[in-house]
Amino acid sequence: MWGGRFSGETDKQVADFTQSIDVDAHLYKYDIAGSIAHAEMLAAQQIIPEKDAEQIISGLKAIQNRIEAGEFQFDPELEDVHMNIESALTDEIGEVGARLHTGRSRNDQIATDERLWLREEIDELMRLVVNLQRALVETAQRFPEAILPGFTHLQHAQPVLWAHHLLAYVEMFERDRERLADCRKRVNRSPLGAGALAGATLPIDREATAGKLGFDSVLQNSMDAVADRDYILELLGALSILAVHWSRISEDIILWASQEFAFVALDDAFCTGSSLMPQKKNPDVAEIARGKTGAVIGALNGMLMTMKGLPLTYNRDLQEDKQGILTALETAKSVLGVFTPMVATMTFRQEPALKAVSDPFLMATDLAEWLVRQGVPFRTAHHRVGGLVKYCERNDRAMNALTLDEMQSIIPEAEEEALSLFDAKKSVNARTVLGGTAPSCVSKQLGAWQQYFAELQ
Amino acid sequence: MWGGRFSGETDKQVADFTQSIDVDAHLYKYDIAGSIAHAEMLAAQQIIPEKDAEQIISGLKAIQNRIEAGEFQFDPELEDVHMNIESALTDEIGEVGARLHTGRSRNDQIATDERLWLREEIDELMRLVVNLQRALVETAQRFPEAILPGFTHLQHAQPVLWAHHLLAYVEMFERDRERLADCRKRVNRSPLGAGALAGATLPIDREATAGKLGFDSVLQNSMDAVADRDYILELLGALSILAVHWSRISEDIILWASQEFAFVALDDAFCTGSSLMPQKKNPDVAEIARGKTGAVIGALNGMLMTMKGLPLTYNRDLQEDKQGILTALETAKSVLGVFTPMVATMTFRQEPALKAVSDPFLMATDLAEWLVRQGVPFRTAHHRVGGLVKYCERNDRAMNALTLDEMQSIIPEAEEEALSLFDAKKSVNARTVLGGTAPSCVSKQLGAWQQYFAELQ
Amino acid sequence: MWGGRFSGETDKQVADFTQSIDVDAHLYKYDIAGSIAHAEMLAAQQIIPEKDAEQIISGLKAIQNRIEAGEFQFDPELEDVHMNIESALTDEIGEVGARLHTGRSRNDQIATDERLWLREEIDELMRLVVNLQRALVETAQRFPEAILPGFTHLQHAQPVLWAHHLLAYVEMFERDRERLADCRKRVNRSPLGAGALAGATLPIDREATAGKLGFDSVLQNSMDAVADRDYILELLGALSILAVHWSRISEDIILWASQEFAFVALDDAFCTGSSLMPQKKNPDVAEIARGKTGAVIGALNGMLMTMKGLPLTYNRDLQEDKQGILTALETAKSVLGVFTPMVATMTFRQEPALKAVSDPFLMATDLAEWLVRQGVPFRTAHHRVGGLVKYCERNDRAMNALTLDEMQSIIPEAEEEALSLFDAKKSVNARTVLGGTAPSCVSKQLGAWQQYFAELQ
Amino acid sequence: MWGGRFSGETDKQVADFTQSIDVDAHLYKYDIAGSIAHAEMLAAQQIIPEKDAEQIISGLKAIQNRIEAGEFQFDPELEDVHMNIESALTDEIGEVGARLHTGRSRNDQIATDERLWLREEIDELMRLVVNLQRALVETAQRFPEAILPGFTHLQHAQPVLWAHHLLAYVEMFERDRERLADCRKRVNRSPLGAGALAGATLPIDREATAGKLGFDSVLQNSMDAVADRDYILELLGALSILAVHWSRISEDIILWASQEFAFVALDDAFCTGSSLMPQKKNPDVAEIARGKTGAVIGALNGMLMTMKGLPLTYNRDLQEDKQGILTALETAKSVLGVFTPMVATMTFRQEPALKAVSDPFLMATDLAEWLVRQGVPFRTAHHRVGGLVKYCERNDRAMNALTLDEMQSIIPEAEEEALSLFDAKKSVNARTVLGGTAPSCVSKQLGAWQQYFAELQ
Repeated sequence: MWGGRFSGETDKQVADFTQSIDVDAHLYKYDIAGSIAHAEMLAAQQIIPEKDAEQIISGLKAIQNRIEAGEFQFDPELEDVHMNIESALTDEIGEVGARLHTGRSRNDQIATDERLWLREEIDELMRLVVNLQRALVETAQRFPEAILPGFTHLQHAQPVLWAHHLLAYVEMFERDRERLADCRKRVNRSPLGAGALAGATLPIDREATAGKLGFDSVLQNSMDAVADRDYILELLGALSILAVHWSRISEDIILWASQEFAFVALDDAFCTGSSLMPQKKNPDVAEIARGKTGAVIGALNGMLMTMKGLPLTYNRDLQEDKQGILTALETAKSVLGVFTPMVATMTFRQEPALKAVSDPFLMATDLAEWLVRQGVPFRTAHHRVGGLVKYCERNDRAMNALTLDEMQSIIPEAEEEALSLFDAKKSVNARTVLGGTAPSCVSKQLGAWQQYFAELQ
Repeated sequence: MWGGRFSGETDKQVADFTQSIDVDAHLYKYDIAGSIAHAEMLAAQQIIPEKDAEQIISGLKAIQNRIEAGEFQFDPELEDVHMNIESALTDEIGEVGARLHTGRSRNDQIATDERLWLREEIDELMRLVVNLQRALVETAQRFPEAILPGFTHLQHAQPVLWAHHLLAYVEMFERDRERLADCRKRVNRSPLGAGALAGATLPIDREATAGKLGFDSVLQNSMDAVADRDYILELLGALSILAVHWSRISEDIILWASQEFAFVALDDAFCTGSSLMPQKKNPDVAEIARGKTGAVIGALNGMLMTMKGLPLTYNRDLQEDKQGILTALETAKSVLGVFTPMVATMTFRQEPALKAVSDPFLMATDLAEWLVRQGVPFRTAHHRVGGLVKYCERNDRAMNALTLDEMQSIIPEAEEEALSLFDAKKSVNARTVLGGTAPSCVSKQLGAWQQYFAELQ
Repeated sequence: MWGGRFSGETDKQVADFTQSIDVDAHLYKYDIAGSIAHAEMLAAQQIIPEKDAEQIISGLKAIQNRIEAGEFQFDPELEDVHMNIESALTDEIGEVGARLHTGRSRNDQIATDERLWLREEIDELMRLVVNLQRALVETAQRFPEAILPGFTHLQHAQPVLWAHHLLAYVEMFERDRERLADCRKRVNRSPLGAGALAGATLPIDREATAGKLGFDSVLQNSMDAVADRDYILELLGALSILAVHWSRISEDIILWASQEFAFVALDDAFCTGSSLMPQKKNPDVAEIARGKTGAVIGALNGMLMTMKGLPLTYNRDLQEDKQGILTALETAKSVLGVFTPMVATMTFRQEPALKAVSDPFLMATDLAEWLVRQGVPFRTAHHRVGGLVKYCERNDRAMNALTLDEMQSIIPEAEEEALSLFDAKKSVNARTVLGGTAPSCVSKQLGAWQQYFAELQ
Repeated sequence: MWGGRFSGETDKQVADFTQSIDVDAHLYKYDIAGSIAHAEMLAAQQIIPEKDAEQIISGLKAIQNRIEAGEFQFDPELEDVHMNIESALTDEIGEVGARLHTGRSRNDQIATDERLWLREEIDELMRLVVNLQRALVETAQRFPEAILPGFTHLQHAQPVLWAHHLLAYVEMFERDRERLADCRKRVNRSPLGAGALAGATLPIDREATAGKLGFDSVLQNSMDAVADRDYILELLGALSILAVHWSRISEDIILWASQEFAFVALDDAFCTGSSLMPQKKNPDVAEIARGKTGAVIGALNGMLMTMKGLPLTYNRDLQEDKQGILTALETAKSVLGVFTPMVATMTFRQEPALKAVSDPFLMATDLAEWLVRQGVPFRTAHHRVGGLVKYCERNDRAMNALTLDEMQSIIPEAEEEALSLFDAKKSVNARTVLGGTAPSCVSKQLGAWQQYFAELQ
């Protein structure tokens, strides 16, 4: 189709190397939508006859039907989705089809296709993220009193509600949604009509096609419109942070499901076994998801590499913009999809968690803060309680089994009340600061999320 | 300060390895601001006496003065900026200083410091981006008629105005500003009062400290507040895309400054020479900037790597969150800073550009579109003009030197008018589509940008 | 197959998410080879009866034949290539098939498969690299006298032979071969018999299976054998450097093929055109290859991300080790494959190159070195010639058109001979230092490479 | 020094932006060594007088003394280490100093400096890796009978010796040493004498300087010699894999040190506490090391980004090759340095480990393999034992507390002996396969490593 000036045939290996149909065929739907809008505009602008536009449009619709019915054969020799469809159109309706590619280039066409595609993918991702958030909230609500050690440095820190821990992830995923929404604003701008790089000498109406295709606005510089791939880079960035989040909840789930932690049981349906070891029930879904973080971030990194140092405007390097984002999107959708029921069926194991949370050192901060309330400066209080920890470790004593005399030998300000602090439930109840883990705070948050989800619908 | 429970000394090598003062000392300003807000709130909540708060605040201000006067010695044995300042405070005002660290942890403190810091950096970056955009617009306005070949695939495509080319970069940088602004929304939320991970048992007022520090809102989950570093990842993502943009304009400048292109001359002040080759005048600034893309994207990649797979909540890995973003910010500010005057002093070399733009093949599309206006379907027109290109190459003829007969032998529809299309200026003038390169369009854009900049002030 | 202990069914979505058959089916050949070696060993060690081993082996061979004849249906519900083949074996030969998976695990099995596969891929890559090196050498020999400007900073530096420039790439690719060979040493070690992680309680003979499979040695620690993926990381590292090399030669080719440089013509068969602009002949192969650098380096980065922070031993994250290396290998093989004929058919365009190389500033260093031979210290010589450059620029004079008087006004030590230095051929001839660009040096190198290639066969 | 042809001054911001003295000053030692070798060669080749060379050499030595005595002020206006030293030399010895930079360029000079530097760093790294390996072996020998659960998927798999687990890391680090040694071969080649890009017109003797500087060989193509940075990329690749290894042992140590696992105690000297929570003793060294993986891999990624798509030969982008490798090297040396004593002082906690390893499911594979020895096909045995696991879980029975009758109800082939298999020590002893975890195998390995280390000295 571009071969007028060429003498020889394209080398077979080159044709294989340069074709992109195996990664862009899935864009057919957007390509056809863009072509229909373009044809309508060409007619409205009297660049092509109205009846030719009609023929083109019905031809395109017929092709779409054939593709969706599985009756269309994409041909790698026709390079890409654009050429495949244009060629089929001409086969279908004859020479009139040759009028479609007027005043546009594959350079603005592919950017249009991709933006329409990614807009839809973002919408789908946002729905999937909400589903996962909702599953987290509902699981939290199923176990409103579940308490476990909160960790810093993977060491016992302070007791927390499991619901509070799960809500931390709801917050993270909410920021992912925000980023997707922000990215969508920049995706949803129309490059169509920018031509190869400089616009056209024909009276193309870019606002008309943008309007037909649901774009929010028109990109204001034709060279930028065909040369840039920010919309892919930014989406890959948002997906990479999302992947970091799912890698972290995966790590938590894997820890919780281990024999050593044993805080959470996963449903059999979300685990697999071992070909050798008969006893195994492995948290494979979380592991694979954690592993797939690499594919998403690798895709971001690869696309940044591809874009680096390219002069304006379109360079064929840009063709390599599809596989990475496609992999990242498929990965994200599959992880979100499978995490939702996995999270929804997770069960808290209160017995081992209670045992863990009865570690009195988890309440050491409560003791220091009790001393603050007695007027002891915090740093002094911290030092005294630290001394008490050392005393317990050296003498192999549990902090909650000390006598008042023993405690006072290290902390002179200690009183009877101090001995009653080593109760995880009490400790949790006391953390009523905004955003804290007290049941009153957490329950308020759970309610707020439920209302938010309800309003989204 | 945390040593109450420890028996031995910290190993010297460990102290060196775990200290962060060499990368966090620069946060002193934000650390002190956060501590002052915290102390005021502690007094208002009657957690510490009002007069203790006053002493603490004046002590902190004194320390800030000493730091800014260069009279403060940060001590690596005190690990980090927080401990250095708290320790100095106690030296300064005695035991009252020991009351400051009440109801907070270094976990919420460092996140507060970083967010205050990055908020300021984002504001500075946005100013620097505007400066560069303005320089691009002004240089474009200095050469309103400059024409050069527009390239796709680094091959002659269609003639464009240099101003149009420069404006493509203004668009890219504008999206960078948008992303920075979006990121700022998520940076400017307060983690202060989240404590170590679970909130406090003391009646901390998080909204009060958030208000004093100019945060837009309070993070609603204490575990998320101390565990997450989205605000760094997202900023690194925005900086990475910005870096891709500057790598691309660098590439263009390096090409333009080569003897082969020779479209642009850089001022001597923005070039350096060779230690060996006396004739050299190299576009070093653009080259180094292109090279520095690696440092920025490496920082993004490194931080994603650091965050991957961490369980909740704070892990000491998070300490490694500063060097990368610091490098990326310093790099971005220095590149933006030096590009602004370099762009402002660039000179267009019309003579070699005119020679290049007189390549008649640059107008091949104009001929095809002229045929469309005569009613020839575009694909047919494209094929005919392609044939004409082949004819010219084989017969070593310039397309603009053909006779009408010759042209008609390949393109039967050709007429006299077609022979007059091989004029770059005419070609540019004809591209009046929205976002096109016609002087009328470009000049409108230049005006719109100038007005936008004026309104920003 | 691992389901004895499980109550419910695996969730359908989980089965899809955890299966790997779509990326590991291609390992069937290595899986079967490993199983045959394993079965022979089991019989030799009297762990299973000799005749059972025979049945297993002929069953496996039958399955291999079916796969290669396209008559085998891989089933995603059977998770992976191992389970698919074991299941087919039991279908084929009955209960005897259930004896195969004795004393091994999928953990050592997959590592064995991958190492056998990658060993073969490395050998193939090394052959492909030699082919490209040979094409570079032969093209260099086709144009033994071709001279063009050598560039630093993309500025004219000193004249060089095109052959010399091409040989720089031959050197780079030779280091790639060295790295592949070094990597192969570490790939070719046997994990088979390490079991799930700890070896077996049955008398497995690991040296026997290693010998049968052509491994150089046996991995000495069973936990390392199943937990590590160094062999993939190192190969991805080698491929990433290779990709950097091809991105650089691509950049050179794209520059050379531009209208501005015009030093090299690519055969039509290695270019494609534009859907809009009839005159276009684009160096797409080099552009796509440059773009594909991202996919390779993204794969390295992704795999490093996947491995980071995994505890011992096997974690299901490791399943995500295949797509990246597969993409990187396919990319590398296709780039090497298509570059070889592209390079072999490149033509040097002496006319524009000669024009470029006649830039007298390219000989400024020769003049400075001539002054050194007259006893002038180099730094002084450099400064004087720099002054002469400035004189020429200011007065718009060509350096090779100066009179001796003019030259002496800036460089007092100048003599008649100095005026004769502005000859690119002479300049090239003078660079006879080892590794220099003089024809005598380059021709020696070309000969050495040819002999080396001959000896490889 | 390169300013002869320049009219204006370099812009101050440009001078700051382009200087590299803050990252290359530390190369002074190698720069001076290279210059001394160069001067000796220039004299031997009669390019400069013998006595000038002597003056230059003694001048350079004096400068080195001043630098090492802290009496040398590097000046950013002199751009880099080369110019600073050459300028100081001329100050020191007068015009004779101006003869040093004859027949070389900063392009070959910096590559020489870097290669000398990295050669030394590699040697140091290899020593540090051995130290860590030795500490691992010695700690393993301190606890020869320590048994703990071996994990796959972070689930109990089979019991292993702790020594076996530690030796897995010794194997990984040995491969790191191999990679460093392989990389060193390619680092230790001389670029000196390649000049700016094309060699010199003066009779430089590259083999002489290579010999003086201890290089193994001379790079055979001058353009490659100045354009390539493989030696940095490959070293960063080796360091990245090393970092993955230390991230994994860090993860294991962090898990082992948690209250839930409690298998290992770290010495107080290798932990730090919390500013808020008095009881905390955190494994900070392992966490920070795990976090620092990001910096190393980020540096690799950044350098690959920097190199991508650069045309030949030297481009100023290459100046950005130092900070990344410097960070990676400092990081690796500090991690290796601090891990060695941390590992040497780790203590195994047998009591909790024994409790964990008494989980009878850890011996499920032993039971299946016992059945194999009774003639049951493995897959059948696996299925039966899986059924037994399910029976135990449903009925809340410990597998090692079953009666023979109960067991036979699920596994008809079971006999009295099968009841005695649930003994971790027995299980470990039985894994005598080459590379297995039996004490006999592990002790042999420990001995082999000790002998290997002894021979290294």
